[in-house]
Amino acid sequence: MKALVYNGPRDVSVTEVPDPRIERPGDAVVQITRTNICGSDLHMYEGRTDIEAGRVLGHENMGRVVETGPAVEQLRPGDMVAVPFNVACGHCPNCERGLTSYCLTANPDRGIAGAAYGFADMGPWNGGQAEYLQVPWADFNLLPLPDDATEKQNDYVMLSDIFPTGYHATEMAHVTAGDTVVIYGAGPVGLMAAYSAIIKGASKVMVIDRHPDRLALAEKIGAIPINDGATSPVEQVLHVTDGHGADCGCECVGYQAHDPAGHEHPSQTLNELVDSVKPTGHIGVVGLYVPADPGGSDELARRGEIAFDYGNFWFKGQHMGTGQCPVKAYNTHLRDLISTGKATPSFVISHQLPLDQAPQAYRHFDNRDNGWTKVTLFPAG
Amino acid sequence: MKALVYNGPRDVSVTEVPDPRIERPGDAVVQITRTNICGSDLHMYEGRTDIEAGRVLGHENMGRVVETGPAVEQLRPGDMVAVPFNVACGHCPNCERGLTSYCLTANPDRGIAGAAYGFADMGPWNGGQAEYLQVPWADFNLLPLPDDATEKQNDYVMLSDIFPTGYHATEMAHVTAGDTVVIYGAGPVGLMAAYSAIIKGASKVMVIDRHPDRLALAEKIGAIPINDGATSPVEQVLHVTDGHGADCGCECVGYQAHDPAGHEHPSQTLNELVDSVKPTGHIGVVGLYVPADPGGSDELARRGEIAFDYGNFWFKGQHMGTGQCPVKAYNTHLRDLISTGKATPSFVISHQLPLDQAPQAYRHFDNRDNGWTKVTLFPAG
Amino acid sequence: MKALVYNGPRDVSVTEVPDPRIERPGDAVVQITRTNICGSDLHMYEGRTDIEAGRVLGHENMGRVVETGPAVEQLRPGDMVAVPFNVACGHCPNCERGLTSYCLTANPDRGIAGAAYGFADMGPWNGGQAEYLQVPWADFNLLPLPDDATEKQNDYVMLSDIFPTGYHATEMAHVTAGDTVVIYGAGPVGLMAAYSAIIKGASKVMVIDRHPDRLALAEKIGAIPINDGATSPVEQVLHVTDGHGADCGCECVGYQAHDPAGHEHPSQTLNELVDSVKPTGHIGVVGLYVPADPGGSDELARRGEIAFDYGNFWFKGQHMGTGQCPVKAYNTHLRDLISTGKATPSFVISHQLPLDQAPQAYRHFDNRDNGWTKVTLFPAG
Amino acid sequence: MKALVYNGPRDVSVTEVPDPRIERPGDAVVQITRTNICGSDLHMYEGRTDIEAGRVLGHENMGRVVETGPAVEQLRPGDMVAVPFNVACGHCPNCERGLTSYCLTANPDRGIAGAAYGFADMGPWNGGQAEYLQVPWADFNLLPLPDDATEKQNDYVMLSDIFPTGYHATEMAHVTAGDTVVIYGAGPVGLMAAYSAIIKGASKVMVIDRHPDRLALAEKIGAIPINDGATSPVEQVLHVTDGHGADCGCECVGYQAHDPAGHEHPSQTLNELVDSVKPTGHIGVVGLYVPADPGGSDELARRGEIAFDYGNFWFKGQHMGTGQCPVKAYNTHLRDLISTGKATPSFVISHQLPLDQAPQAYRHFDNRDNGWTKVTLFPAG
Repeated sequence: MKALVYNGPRDVSVTEVPDPRIERPGDAVVQITRTNICGSDLHMYEGRTDIEAGRVLGHENMGRVVETGPAVEQLRPGDMVAVPFNVACGHCPNCERGLTSYCLTANPDRGIAGAAYGFADMGPWNGGQAEYLQVPWADFNLLPLPDDATEKQNDYVMLSDIFPTGYHATEMAHVTAGDTVVIYGAGPVGLMAAYSAIIKGASKVMVIDRHPDRLALAEKIGAIPINDGATSPVEQVLHVTDGHGADCGCECVGYQAHDPAGHEHPSQTLNELVDSVKPTGHIGVVGLYVPADPGGSDELARRGEIAFDYGNFWFKGQHMGTGQCPVKAYNTHLRDLISTGKATPSFVISHQLPLDQAPQAYRHFDNRDNGWTKVTLFPAG
Repeated sequence: MKALVYNGPRDVSVTEVPDPRIERPGDAVVQITRTNICGSDLHMYEGRTDIEAGRVLGHENMGRVVETGPAVEQLRPGDMVAVPFNVACGHCPNCERGLTSYCLTANPDRGIAGAAYGFADMGPWNGGQAEYLQVPWADFNLLPLPDDATEKQNDYVMLSDIFPTGYHATEMAHVTAGDTVVIYGAGPVGLMAAYSAIIKGASKVMVIDRHPDRLALAEKIGAIPINDGATSPVEQVLHVTDGHGADCGCECVGYQAHDPAGHEHPSQTLNELVDSVKPTGHIGVVGLYVPADPGGSDELARRGEIAFDYGNFWFKGQHMGTGQCPVKAYNTHLRDLISTGKATPSFVISHQLPLDQAPQAYRHFDNRDNGWTKVTLFPAG
Repeated sequence: MKALVYNGPRDVSVTEVPDPRIERPGDAVVQITRTNICGSDLHMYEGRTDIEAGRVLGHENMGRVVETGPAVEQLRPGDMVAVPFNVACGHCPNCERGLTSYCLTANPDRGIAGAAYGFADMGPWNGGQAEYLQVPWADFNLLPLPDDATEKQNDYVMLSDIFPTGYHATEMAHVTAGDTVVIYGAGPVGLMAAYSAIIKGASKVMVIDRHPDRLALAEKIGAIPINDGATSPVEQVLHVTDGHGADCGCECVGYQAHDPAGHEHPSQTLNELVDSVKPTGHIGVVGLYVPADPGGSDELARRGEIAFDYGNFWFKGQHMGTGQCPVKAYNTHLRDLISTGKATPSFVISHQLPLDQAPQAYRHFDNRDNGWTKVTLFPAG
Repeated sequence: MKALVYNGPRDVSVTEVPDPRIERPGDAVVQITRTNICGSDLHMYEGRTDIEAGRVLGHENMGRVVETGPAVEQLRPGDMVAVPFNVACGHCPNCERGLTSYCLTANPDRGIAGAAYGFADMGPWNGGQAEYLQVPWADFNLLPLPDDATEKQNDYVMLSDIFPTGYHATEMAHVTAGDTVVIYGAGPVGLMAAYSAIIKGASKVMVIDRHPDRLALAEKIGAIPINDGATSPVEQVLHVTDGHGADCGCECVGYQAHDPAGHEHPSQTLNELVDSVKPTGHIGVVGLYVPADPGGSDELARRGEIAFDYGNFWFKGQHMGTGQCPVKAYNTHLRDLISTGKATPSFVISHQLPLDQAPQAYRHFDNRDNGWTKVTLFPAG
């Protein structure tokens, strides 16, 4: 089959690789009908990880079941399914508590909890920027989609990662109806966090970024766009919240936060969030941070440490949740919002392309070229 | 009346000050029968805060109501009461949600949420290391005690701060029956956190310290003492938990964490906690951290920042709650545990002294003289 | 001043009564600018309670502070405020946990937890269908309103009872984004429950009633109207939910549930809810049930018992929350939704009348005359 | 193999039946080393269910894995395991939220959520009062036990049902440290509820029954025994709680509640619980209630309805959770309490017998013969 393969830093190509197949009784093979490029794919694309050459990338997948192993019970060939980016076994102590992003089984080779398709350090699984994908523990991992699955593919594909991840940020931030919410980052995940907060009935949702096209999208869905350029974003948030600070905060940028000149400041958004959120407030962090960053801008960064304004955080009595999203905790409810027409997360898509054009798309997306908000690929044609 | 007054760094004395009186309709005056010296009193004693000379110290108080204002309804002279260290109004947005440690009314002069008796930066309130104490919003702040109040004063006085504060750490750490729990610090608050975890039915409670007398107390109440001297405490915790890390973690040391030579490392216990707790685990931080520390050991510390191992924290998907304890959230339940004989937190007391001997007690306590775990004073004789 | 006074069964009149005044240090007097007639006022109007002649009715109030006692700190004459229907002290064990609908102080004469203005069995407090209202513990009970208070009075007045009560039903039913929700009753409270579920992002909200005007309002706000006439409402709910039953259920009818012929069946909506909600689902009951009902339709009803389909409830493993709403738990957040334009609960109002016309309004409302959904009075002119 | 088989009302025998075997890839076969007789087995024994002749009974099982299907990953022959009484698939919407007692897959033949071994109406699965047991979805259902598994079998076997079920009652009742708790029923489940409440740090645990041997066991573990004979149990609970009522209530009797003369009153314990628990309190109901009871004592009972004192329940604003326990939600934590010596639930066992003596044990247990509190069988010899 054809697949998008990582060759080396800023070098990916669509090439022929062996077809995935049923290896264990619980496996399924899914024909990929939609697969997105994610901001975290760029960490690998840019060569900042140790992912090996030859791996197929892609963890935001959906498609059609084409084959199932003998232990698979709830799925049949032809079923349309969304594929959570987490690979999870369903029976370890974490999975059975719903913490599928920290599965203790699916990442056998390292002392790390959690696995994903086509991802550095997250187990041996190939990605889905390809014609087909092997899915283990298929009954547990695959989410069946309703009759409108084909028609609404651009919405349902968002169930694999960014819609649940944005939603997860708002859950860890304890967003409830009437709250004021501040979100750092208007990339696809930040926009999904804003969208989730709006769906939950937040009274004011502030989104901070400096890209006009992203801020325009934030405003379009009903959020208050805040440009971090001229005035301090913290001051703007305090102004909008009558000096109190927001009730809830979401971090959707990660360790590669940088100033307009491109210099990275990994602690910047976190420290600004602490300033932007009221005392006793909750903060959810879904932006990626790494235990070690050999290419970091200073010694702290290289050790994976940040200069965190902890005294301020503690004195305000704030709370913080972190980490990768357990997609299965949310994807059934978000699916139902899509099927009933209450949510259309496809609004973030800027480009729909065939698989062959994936390398160009990576280049544009990595360059942050204007207008390249989110790319979805359709390998099945 | 006589009171323990702060004169300057490492200089306190018992002297005559004006009697407290009813100033507002909701005030009460309480005759202090027990008042403890707290580890956080030492921050002020050592001159590391900007508390003014002349203030009466002491926020761990209990006693007998002697006078009430015309708006006080539920209390009468003669009632025995525990006094939470938080001063709280009862009607601001935080108090009405139970977040009395972040009252928006009781600290009028600064942009800080939260107030306390006899405490730097926490409002204008005098402390209770004195014969009498003025208590505002008395109906809301004072906890009535049952008939055995006099007999069990050494237990009930712990309701003002350290028993609820230790319990709060375990709440923020999400301790439930069967959990494994690691606690950094076997000072009075750490011991109360361990005691709370044991009361809640934790399966293993590990307490890390390097003072043999404190570790002995931890062992006496059923915890597993871990000496941070020889082997890394993290390795010891991993050993006790079969390599998984503890389910829950509590920080009861604060920014003055230091090595055996006395050099402060404000990020040390936090980073070790992140290593000691399992992925997805919760951490509660009640040790004190400050927004700025002019006497800090390096530039980060002076800005109130710490070199936090954030990449590790995020990659493990951990959660953290921080800040001062809202005593009222727990003190009724903890009172009932004392009155039914299920809890006797007085086990931490090493010295019971009259008020006159408070200056010597401060000196011994500040020196960490062996055996000076916890001092309670009895100003009423 | 003028006030609407209960004289006897189906006999109310607007008459002169003594002005309310400051009796205790924490009291305030509020000039009433809006006050609603509530469905539960009809229980008293119809003579099915033991409320004494001469009491002023009305518990859905808002207005302007005109006078405050010496212990009142956060309010000043001129402040616009919403008045929760619960009278609550702020410092009893229930109030301090936020359970203001079960205050242990405000209802001194009976062994009942909880008090309300102008309500049988709920303490000695006069109601607000009058020019002025005495409010005890004013700092705790009164909610300040923002600058648009006068302009949006028809929305803000809903904060006193029915908007929080409807919201409370959805909280006890555990409604979260994406859920399917079934609501029995499209009276004002049922409509507010539906509106709350929609604000929270429910995927489908079904509302059951048999009054076309009410069902039309439900449909107007985005709910699915279900007429309980022709087909069984349970079958219709199962059809809409693909046979699963709704995730969440709300009871907004109460013990006076009756068939089209007017015969009361106090267990009917509860038993149908159990059938309409999925196994493991949560049900919130805000419709009124009474411990004894001398005018009940059979012996069970007269004893306050109902023939509850408990075996079915237990076998499905459902959960149920009940009782009066603690308004303060929700009114700040709902206020903020109104002030930001995210909620306009005034859509339920069918009639705005001066106080003088209250007696006629009671008559029409009690007759369930077509179109009399909700009446608001403006005593201040 | 040998197994205890149901032949008809009050007729069971140990007889030869075919050996269980691996039928599906995820199956395991477990050699049963301990299996208990449960109070709910008596419902079937007495002929009050429609269970077919020839079924093997027994849902409280533990043992040793002897064979696994090709899809089983985490278990090997020789592993000691506890077997939850729920049969659960691990991947349906309920299982993935942890609601394994309402699995939507394991009970294929009826419109009922939830399945169990050897149980009427709970799917086709044979029980474990036998030498061997077939366990489907073995990775998900079986709980591995530590090295002391053989030595502590009498404790670990309680993980299959009654220890988690008693704990579940206290969870639904929201028991936290310091609470007062009332439990109706001192049978094995009621005793486990009391034991769980004590482990969680309840301040007072009251247990109501009329059998002196059971009340003695309750007292032995630190509960307050209340004999429902002479004085009303409600009055005794109010006396112990200073008139307030208990904070939390647990129902561990079920629809066969009866008076000393043996007449059943299915609503009795529920109505007394409502009276015994404070306003706003939570009640957990794990005693069994059935949707229809053809042998019920009156028409209501036959329809599965009860004369519930609903007006009182609502007026007190109480909350109620019901249904079968999702064992997997608790069994890892309870296992860890046993392995660390913090819990020894074997205290309820009155008789340890070989499988051959099971028929006599059923007869004694059904007769409520004095001293027959709990029987465990050891089929493996």
